[in-house]
Amino acid sequence: MLEKRTPIPVSEAVKKVMSIPQKQKTEQVHLHKAYRRTLAEDLIAKHPVPPFDRSPYDGFAIRSQDSSEASRDNPITFQVIETIGAGSVCSREVQSGEAVRIMTGAMLPKNCDAIVMLELAHAFSENETNYMTIKREFPAGHNISYQGEDVATGTILLKKGTVINPGTAALLATFGYEYVTVAKQPTIGVFATGSELLDLGDPLEPGKIRNSNTHMLLAQIERAGAIPYYMGNLPDEFDLCYNRVKEAAEQVDMLITTGGVSVGDFDLLPEVYAKLEAEVLFNKIAMRPGSVTTVAVWQDTLLFGLSGNPSACYVGFEVFVKPVIGTSMLQTKPHLQKVKATLIEPVPKANPFTRFVRCALSYSNDQLQVAPSGFNKSSAVSSLAKTVAFMVLPGGTRGYTTGDLVDVLLLESSEGSEWPWE
Amino acid sequence: MLEKRTPIPVSEAVKKVMSIPQKQKTEQVHLHKAYRRTLAEDLIAKHPVPPFDRSPYDGFAIRSQDSSEASRDNPITFQVIETIGAGSVCSREVQSGEAVRIMTGAMLPKNCDAIVMLELAHAFSENETNYMTIKREFPAGHNISYQGEDVATGTILLKKGTVINPGTAALLATFGYEYVTVAKQPTIGVFATGSELLDLGDPLEPGKIRNSNTHMLLAQIERAGAIPYYMGNLPDEFDLCYNRVKEAAEQVDMLITTGGVSVGDFDLLPEVYAKLEAEVLFNKIAMRPGSVTTVAVWQDTLLFGLSGNPSACYVGFEVFVKPVIGTSMLQTKPHLQKVKATLIEPVPKANPFTRFVRCALSYSNDQLQVAPSGFNKSSAVSSLAKTVAFMVLPGGTRGYTTGDLVDVLLLESSEGSEWPWE
Repeated sequence: MLEKRTPIPVSEAVKKVMSIPQKQKTEQVHLHKAYRRTLAEDLIAKHPVPPFDRSPYDGFAIRSQDSSEASRDNPITFQVIETIGAGSVCSREVQSGEAVRIMTGAMLPKNCDAIVMLELAHAFSENETNYMTIKREFPAGHNISYQGEDVATGTILLKKGTVINPGTAALLATFGYEYVTVAKQPTIGVFATGSELLDLGDPLEPGKIRNSNTHMLLAQIERAGAIPYYMGNLPDEFDLCYNRVKEAAEQVDMLITTGGVSVGDFDLLPEVYAKLEAEVLFNKIAMRPGSVTTVAVWQDTLLFGLSGNPSACYVGFEVFVKPVIGTSMLQTKPHLQKVKATLIEPVPKANPFTRFVRCALSYSNDQLQVAPSGFNKSSAVSSLAKTVAFMVLPGGTRGYTTGDLVDVLLLESSEGSEWPWE
Repeated sequence: MLEKRTPIPVSEAVKKVMSIPQKQKTEQVHLHKAYRRTLAEDLIAKHPVPPFDRSPYDGFAIRSQDSSEASRDNPITFQVIETIGAGSVCSREVQSGEAVRIMTGAMLPKNCDAIVMLELAHAFSENETNYMTIKREFPAGHNISYQGEDVATGTILLKKGTVINPGTAALLATFGYEYVTVAKQPTIGVFATGSELLDLGDPLEPGKIRNSNTHMLLAQIERAGAIPYYMGNLPDEFDLCYNRVKEAAEQVDMLITTGGVSVGDFDLLPEVYAKLEAEVLFNKIAMRPGSVTTVAVWQDTLLFGLSGNPSACYVGFEVFVKPVIGTSMLQTKPHLQKVKATLIEPVPKANPFTRFVRCALSYSNDQLQVAPSGFNKSSAVSSLAKTVAFMVLPGGTRGYTTGDLVDVLLLESSEGSEWPWE
């Protein structure tokens, strides 16, 4: 009755999951739908930026050599032959003694090589002709934004696998990407298991609780950039469980169940995996919470059997599911970003196994500080809402005390890690 | 021709914008659509968590006093009268010498006050009756998750104004919030101005550039949690500009234009504001980039006139528009989160005015480090994609050097600040 399971280290478990090849599909979306999606192609500069020499200010374009003798005692006057706004082009070459009134962003007229800022020129009209006078020299190149000074043609601006942020959107627009090739978002089904679970709208009953894990996971999946599918609750009935898991696994890219993976009499997932003839990658990990986390592969589809405890479920998703989602979207740093932080509260409990502690972050000057985000039993949901990171306390360590430097995995960062494990 | 404008400090400009009252509307959304939305009501515990005393493990529920004499030399045997899974309730009170086989999460049977973990009991059957034997005492309360130990009824778990994350979703589910009252997302229209602007699909032409600011702003608006409306480009023609701005301002909660706010001959926004009889809150700020950022109010609608320079536009949105969006969604910390970081590159330029430098962050142990994210002219778009924060260098300071501690505003944090300005 009591099955013997051998725990493996967290890093090994993650490696096993990551070794299962993921479909990496792409699709085209309009730029306005591309925010938070992942680039599926390198973004290469199709032309220089700026695309031509231009004026960064409102002022007058001149030939610099015409200003070489100008001084307070020897003001030099130019005839203003034309006015060009951004988007317009000067109609003719500029001759000696001529200037062009030019607006920010407008293309530098031919022969001109300096811009006089508006404030440094005295403009006036006489006999319906416009003039301006300067009292100093303006050297060649003064106040000019040169073609390509920001970006040269052919520059790789962003690598595929980059998550699109507002700045990326600006770059894509600059080069005319009305449609962007992005990674397709994997679809992920979520079942909760357990006859004790009530639906959201149900009134409480003795011995029963509302399913919270599924709704948490749907948001975690969204945060990770994938598409969640709500599959409902599975009661503790083997045939129903088996059929619905099989049916769902055929429809989605990955399937998550929560609960039912332990060694209790009503933990049906191990039997479901067996009947499916799914390959179980592991069913015990040297970690707390979440030691019973199980992952199996069935017909190339990963079946994640997360613990039914809310905190273990939360950790299991971030450690095992999130990096697979990132990989299937071509991200090169698909894991949680790992940094270090200083403890501002003791965590006295010894750690026979790798322990993940839900925590909140703060800063004191430039020092990143960390503290548990509250009540820390693995069944506690109240601390989850304040959780923005996990502390990772290695197995085989005693408790930690205020001032200790600990590893921290960031949950809300867009950065990621290549491989946060030792 | 050359209008004289008086610059005001950044903090004063932000204060002026924030002083304009915002509509704060709410709506109900399904929990599955609530991720990243903002709670419009406090989340109060409707019942204790756990809702009843329960077992955190698979094992046997007993009356602790029945175990008081148990030892290695004096094993005590209990008759196992029933098996209950999570969600089931024991059918009768437990008598002396009786035990109940209990699964994780199941409700503690009446009269029981201790749980024996499965591994510590020897289970066997005789004459179709089930028994289990223990060899030690289990004190009252051993291995019990008590009703309310995580959350007591009436606890305020989250304040209104909290942005919903996966943990929040779990809490909402626990208390049966199938529909959640959230802040309505304000609608924000975006126009780019300037005859030099090409649309996304257009080929390049001499003197013209593609509009990148609008597409960047649409993503910034989405990141801030509001709903962006793409309004297209406005050419430098006054009547068209005026009519389209007026029409748009009647349809959205806030309106952003980029470009056209400077003092150039083709900067039409100041005239548009004048003809609308909009109240101009300011049109010059002691900051770089973005000194020409202008904000006006017309019939309770804020009109943000951001600079046409990509970097100035980016900064202008985050400093002036984002906190208004947050406020209209009831957030109590609507501004960018402000922290300190250590410079790992010099920023030698003197700062006659408050300077915002786009930057990238990194960690060395627990130290947050900052460096400019690249080419830093205000027209540069290439550095925007790597930007996750701004350095804020106060006006009246000289350059900064490696090792200096500087203020940093985080762009990707879900935390926020109440008031990051001095």
